[in-house]
Amino acid sequence: MSSTRQIVVGDAALGGVALGGGAPVVVQSMLNIPTSDAPGCLAQIDILAEAGCELIRLALPDTASLPAFERICAESPLPVIADIHFDFRLAIAAAELGAAKLRINPGNIADLDLVDAIIDAAGSVGIPIRIGVNAGSLAPEFALRSELSLTEKLVASAESFVEHFEERDFTNIVVSAKAHDVRTTVEVYRLLAADLPQVPLHLGVTEAGTAFTGTVKSAAALGALLLDGIGDTIRVSLTADPVEELRVAWQLLATLGLRRRGPELVSCPTCGRCQVDLIALACEVEERLSFVRKPLTVAVMGCIVNGPGEAASADVGVACGAGKGAIFSAGKILYTVPESTIVDALMEEIDRY
Amino acid sequence: MSSTRQIVVGDAALGGVALGGGAPVVVQSMLNIPTSDAPGCLAQIDILAEAGCELIRLALPDTASLPAFERICAESPLPVIADIHFDFRLAIAAAELGAAKLRINPGNIADLDLVDAIIDAAGSVGIPIRIGVNAGSLAPEFALRSELSLTEKLVASAESFVEHFEERDFTNIVVSAKAHDVRTTVEVYRLLAADLPQVPLHLGVTEAGTAFTGTVKSAAALGALLLDGIGDTIRVSLTADPVEELRVAWQLLATLGLRRRGPELVSCPTCGRCQVDLIALACEVEERLSFVRKPLTVAVMGCIVNGPGEAASADVGVACGAGKGAIFSAGKILYTVPESTIVDALMEEIDRY
Repeated sequence: MSSTRQIVVGDAALGGVALGGGAPVVVQSMLNIPTSDAPGCLAQIDILAEAGCELIRLALPDTASLPAFERICAESPLPVIADIHFDFRLAIAAAELGAAKLRINPGNIADLDLVDAIIDAAGSVGIPIRIGVNAGSLAPEFALRSELSLTEKLVASAESFVEHFEERDFTNIVVSAKAHDVRTTVEVYRLLAADLPQVPLHLGVTEAGTAFTGTVKSAAALGALLLDGIGDTIRVSLTADPVEELRVAWQLLATLGLRRRGPELVSCPTCGRCQVDLIALACEVEERLSFVRKPLTVAVMGCIVNGPGEAASADVGVACGAGKGAIFSAGKILYTVPESTIVDALMEEIDRY
Repeated sequence: MSSTRQIVVGDAALGGVALGGGAPVVVQSMLNIPTSDAPGCLAQIDILAEAGCELIRLALPDTASLPAFERICAESPLPVIADIHFDFRLAIAAAELGAAKLRINPGNIADLDLVDAIIDAAGSVGIPIRIGVNAGSLAPEFALRSELSLTEKLVASAESFVEHFEERDFTNIVVSAKAHDVRTTVEVYRLLAADLPQVPLHLGVTEAGTAFTGTVKSAAALGALLLDGIGDTIRVSLTADPVEELRVAWQLLATLGLRRRGPELVSCPTCGRCQVDLIALACEVEERLSFVRKPLTVAVMGCIVNGPGEAASADVGVACGAGKGAIFSAGKILYTVPESTIVDALMEEIDRY
């Protein structure tokens, strides 16, 4: 848990989302349909909220999208973050039209006077700004400093903007500095956390890749940082349906013992000792658990070597032998069932737990 | 890169696999078919070797499996590790029948005299032993010490066995201490690396779960450790086809910049700015890259915000606009093609690179 300043995204009176300062790590994602399509965006927000999204970001590419943006802000069940590049006027408009937060990369905005206009607009409606630095779009004054490593450029850029915002007495900020490689990401955020202990951090790996590649990258980078207690909100970026981003984000938080949305499944790797169809069994249990919201640990173990020990330490579990399974609950064997009814028996004990 | 003692798995004269002491992190997996089925095992070893497996482990559950085990050792293209629980005689037989390494959990073997017999058998044929401690099968003298945390039990157990082996002048060892949760795993290995800087470490999360859950867990735990320079060999344990384990392991090593088997794909998350079918595009590129062994970075970028910067820093890349893509190679735009031929153009430039 970080001890950064706490900021609130969304109307506090209506249950805004606290970020930093000991609040649980917040999960966010981004819409992938045009903002101009308000009904489509609102429908996707509902789907993502159901999948565990707590803050939703959308791109605001042009003035034509502003009416739809206003409607989305008004009707969204989640606080809406406007993502703005290049045009400071869109950021000001977003603040006025109901954005719960702005995300800008000051390096993409021509000069600091225009950034100041955005700061003042956010300040006047009391919403936070994410300073989002990105390896792919560093401001020229940092990008061109060839004596610096990419890590150093990202940190220097983010810190110079934080200094600028704080000098203007605007501290309602969160910072991200994304790269597409894990090592740079981890180094950058460790430096930022050390240098700016007061500033909430938004973690993410940018351009992380497809569901497979991006899951590995994000879990490695965000996992290492979250284990260090660094990070107040995360976005897992995938070239995939944003629902997948949320699934990975929640799995990661559960995996680290930080937050849980449902059960955790423990299952053993397959090996030559296994005498049941463990992959099918574990996948069926995982599938059926996705409808369960109880935060319990379920073990599906294939053999007698580690099985009973692991199954007994889970809330509910099964340790399989040849064609059958011993069902555990709260550390005790309850009974043994044939392979065909293992999943049903397990689900029954989960309901009962 | 760790500065542990280096051990060699497999016949050094025939190109055994170096482990520790600055050698590249070694990727291993485990067969999931009965060892008694020698032809089946050998066929699976070929598949796994092709998928990047460098050491292969198999369970040796009973004496009936020994003839098949001997044949597998003789014919396997990869060094074979015998995984033994409970029965010390199987370990001794494995050493005599051609195992390249033994893996035992001394806590599962009734007393230390029997462990010593295994040590002597391994010593006489010059093969290493992995001391594999596991949260699910801790020796009772550690499991029952309720004043210790699970982390402390695992570390104390592993260290007591290392001490025993080293006192017997057997230093041809590698150590693992697996738990099924990420935080315990990371804590345990950080402590082992600090306390036993001379001992090569085998990293893994046990009972990590299905392909999805296990990938997140393994990437987070092994990623955090490998970033610290801890770990000489890894196994990603999944309740899935072992080929998936290798895919995750190699992706993780590539992701951390430690080793590469082929190209790295960088692709951006989808967002409302994207005007091409980026998910389909990235997935097609990923699929076609799986046949490429050149270690280059390929960027598939959806828009003009971060696209050109990222695409230019990759070896080969595309930055897409509305229905078209600008193809980059070695930092320069080469030409622009319509969406339908982006993948072909990209693959052509990869071949040319």
